[in-house]
Amino acid sequence: MKRFEKHIFVCENKRPEGHPKGCCADKNSFEVRALFKKRLKELGFSAKVRSNAAGCLDACEHGVTVVVYPEQFWYGKVTVDDVEEIIQQHLVKNIPVERLKIKDEKFNKDEIKI
Amino acid sequence: MKRFEKHIFVCENKRPEGHPKGCCADKNSFEVRALFKKRLKELGFSAKVRSNAAGCLDACEHGVTVVVYPEQFWYGKVTVDDVEEIIQQHLVKNIPVERLKIKDEKFNKDEIKI
Repeated sequence: MKRFEKHIFVCENKRPEGHPKGCCADKNSFEVRALFKKRLKELGFSAKVRSNAAGCLDACEHGVTVVVYPEQFWYGKVTVDDVEEIIQQHLVKNIPVERLKIKDEKFNKDEIKI
Repeated sequence: MKRFEKHIFVCENKRPEGHPKGCCADKNSFEVRALFKKRLKELGFSAKVRSNAAGCLDACEHGVTVVVYPEQFWYGKVTVDDVEEIIQQHLVKNIPVERLKIKDEKFNKDEIKI
């Protein structure tokens, strides 16, 4: 058993106003990460599942970007409305939420082994 | 193949002055992360190995704390002088640097499978 069974990183990178790449911070990534933290604590999962802020995950166009380890599953365009589904389906049942998977072939290239 | 073969997260959490837990930011974690980024780029590894800033990794007493995924190997008390060894030994040869491993049993509990 590792320190955390699941470790979720939410990009909170902030770019200057008007930057062509945009940034996750401007798409409410702080609120997404805060809700993960709050719900994981309420559900009693916080000892085994940790949500962390991260710097730029190099997936700016897909933001808000979230990556779940150890399986390195990449979620894109995550909103606060998606947090509960990711927790209940992926973190509880080990079934990634397909509709939020980043479809770009650079990410999630192969079958996810959980 | 995943997006990144190795994904390194360096805690850059900053606590208020005098906080009893201390923080990684006060132990030069920014410089550690910046050096990982610089050297990985110089070595041509940055497409496959990414170093990211992270919020508090809940290992404050072991800071500067670094966790390497997908194997979730935890390093503690990392300084800029340790960065090259972690890159050359762990990231290139897949052999974790034992002397920097966090010894606390909450971390690195079992054999690391890489």
